[in-house]
Amino acid sequence: MRIAVIGGGRITDTETEYETARAVGRLLATRGHEIVCGGLGGVMEAACRGGSDAGGHTIGILPGTDRDGANEYVETVITTGMGNARNVLVVLNSDAVIAIDGATGTLSEIGHALDYDRPVAGIDTHDLAELTGFESVETPEEAVTSVERRV
Amino acid sequence: MRIAVIGGGRITDTETEYETARAVGRLLATRGHEIVCGGLGGVMEAACRGGSDAGGHTIGILPGTDRDGANEYVETVITTGMGNARNVLVVLNSDAVIAIDGATGTLSEIGHALDYDRPVAGIDTHDLAELTGFESVETPEEAVTSVERRV
Amino acid sequence: MRIAVIGGGRITDTETEYETARAVGRLLATRGHEIVCGGLGGVMEAACRGGSDAGGHTIGILPGTDRDGANEYVETVITTGMGNARNVLVVLNSDAVIAIDGATGTLSEIGHALDYDRPVAGIDTHDLAELTGFESVETPEEAVTSVERRV
Amino acid sequence: MRIAVIGGGRITDTETEYETARAVGRLLATRGHEIVCGGLGGVMEAACRGGSDAGGHTIGILPGTDRDGANEYVETVITTGMGNARNVLVVLNSDAVIAIDGATGTLSEIGHALDYDRPVAGIDTHDLAELTGFESVETPEEAVTSVERRV
Repeated sequence: MRIAVIGGGRITDTETEYETARAVGRLLATRGHEIVCGGLGGVMEAACRGGSDAGGHTIGILPGTDRDGANEYVETVITTGMGNARNVLVVLNSDAVIAIDGATGTLSEIGHALDYDRPVAGIDTHDLAELTGFESVETPEEAVTSVERRV
Repeated sequence: MRIAVIGGGRITDTETEYETARAVGRLLATRGHEIVCGGLGGVMEAACRGGSDAGGHTIGILPGTDRDGANEYVETVITTGMGNARNVLVVLNSDAVIAIDGATGTLSEIGHALDYDRPVAGIDTHDLAELTGFESVETPEEAVTSVERRV
Repeated sequence: MRIAVIGGGRITDTETEYETARAVGRLLATRGHEIVCGGLGGVMEAACRGGSDAGGHTIGILPGTDRDGANEYVETVITTGMGNARNVLVVLNSDAVIAIDGATGTLSEIGHALDYDRPVAGIDTHDLAELTGFESVETPEEAVTSVERRV
Repeated sequence: MRIAVIGGGRITDTETEYETARAVGRLLATRGHEIVCGGLGGVMEAACRGGSDAGGHTIGILPGTDRDGANEYVETVITTGMGNARNVLVVLNSDAVIAIDGATGTLSEIGHALDYDRPVAGIDTHDLAELTGFESVETPEEAVTSVERRV
């Protein structure tokens, strides 16, 4: 499967959420899934880094027009030049979504994901448990299992 | 100003939310604002109808490629052929947003709106009161006043 | 009908092409057509100015995210934040296209227009007479008549 | 480098242009380049097939929303749901472009490519030799050499 990992872009590698996202990325790659994300820093970087650690394929879909804008752990960089409209493409290009932390951009991606019937598992992100398709989880293992089960 | 009205696309004209959206549209036009929306039915139609009742300018930005897909109260129809990515354009083309009812598409629009720093007033929609820029209100008057005050 | 006017964005108001585009805009509005364009300067500005002179409705679809980026003769400004991908929307939002002068951006728009089966009339632009749907003309009158006849 | 191969989508595998595109794909992969294309049939399929024959990485950027819409030789499929606006993304995601045969969609891509300063080599496609950045060539070898030299 191809799983989108979305979330806070400004988390640094000393924060818990970074380790969470990296563990998610590592798990996804270990279980044979591709990772797609927005290609920038924070949660996106951590997920790609974890995926890369485990030898998985990582795809980053950038808002800008320059492939060099991607974090160093993205293997296949896609540029769009479409700004925030690229959020739609990140979740469209997945079979399911794992959200970690994140603000309003992440909220837009969760909305699009559910609109496209992609199951979403959220760790420390917006509380949207009332929405069909959204599941709050605690750990990377639970997140990966949650989306694997529901695709 | 130009105000986006977003929300449930399947509300029919016998439902309360339809009357709410129509009242919002009427108020916006009366106070000299343009209305922008996704151009389809339900809340979008009701807002355009209200705006049209009061002689305002209504803009509908469609997901499809056919201008005939717009509801009959849209004065300026814009087609995109971009599917749900047009949600981004609806809120980008506003100075502020009023959300009425609505499901996951509306959630994506609220996320994009806040991401673009557009103030959002919500009536009977997702409860996102913890997000900066989002204000829950009860009536059309409160919604319009809320966004006018904050732009 | 709604006619797109496309062409060189750097033409200034002392050049012949500016007067040609302005005359096209004036003619279109006089005959009851809306004008859609890319919203910026040169041919786009001239066409909107002519349309505005004659009391017509002018729509400008911008590459950027700021409505203030439009030329002053655009009545309804649509922003996209999609860069050159907005070229697709300019021609999609028309029933036919008139091209005046122009370089590679204009070439992309002519390609998209023909791809969407919009008839194109060209004045002093790329020579694409071998393509079905493209007609080279000499004057504003011929351009407007050419597209009116073929829609 | 990453090279876009664009051209006629309805060419079948018994036609000369298919063999040309396949040879271009094979050459590109042999020389260490990634291939990006629109992901569908004809020239796109042939180029991916050639790239795949030679063990290269092939990327297909689809107009639709379903990854299954890609030809079988695309290794990394990107969906857009944006229809013809995806043409912009195909060339944006390249360093240079090789065009083989093709009609109006290809014309739009050549326009966008030159607009983004991507060198274009054309085999049996539109005659645009008057445009800076466009070079007409005869053979796959000449095409690849032409774009390698100019990036």
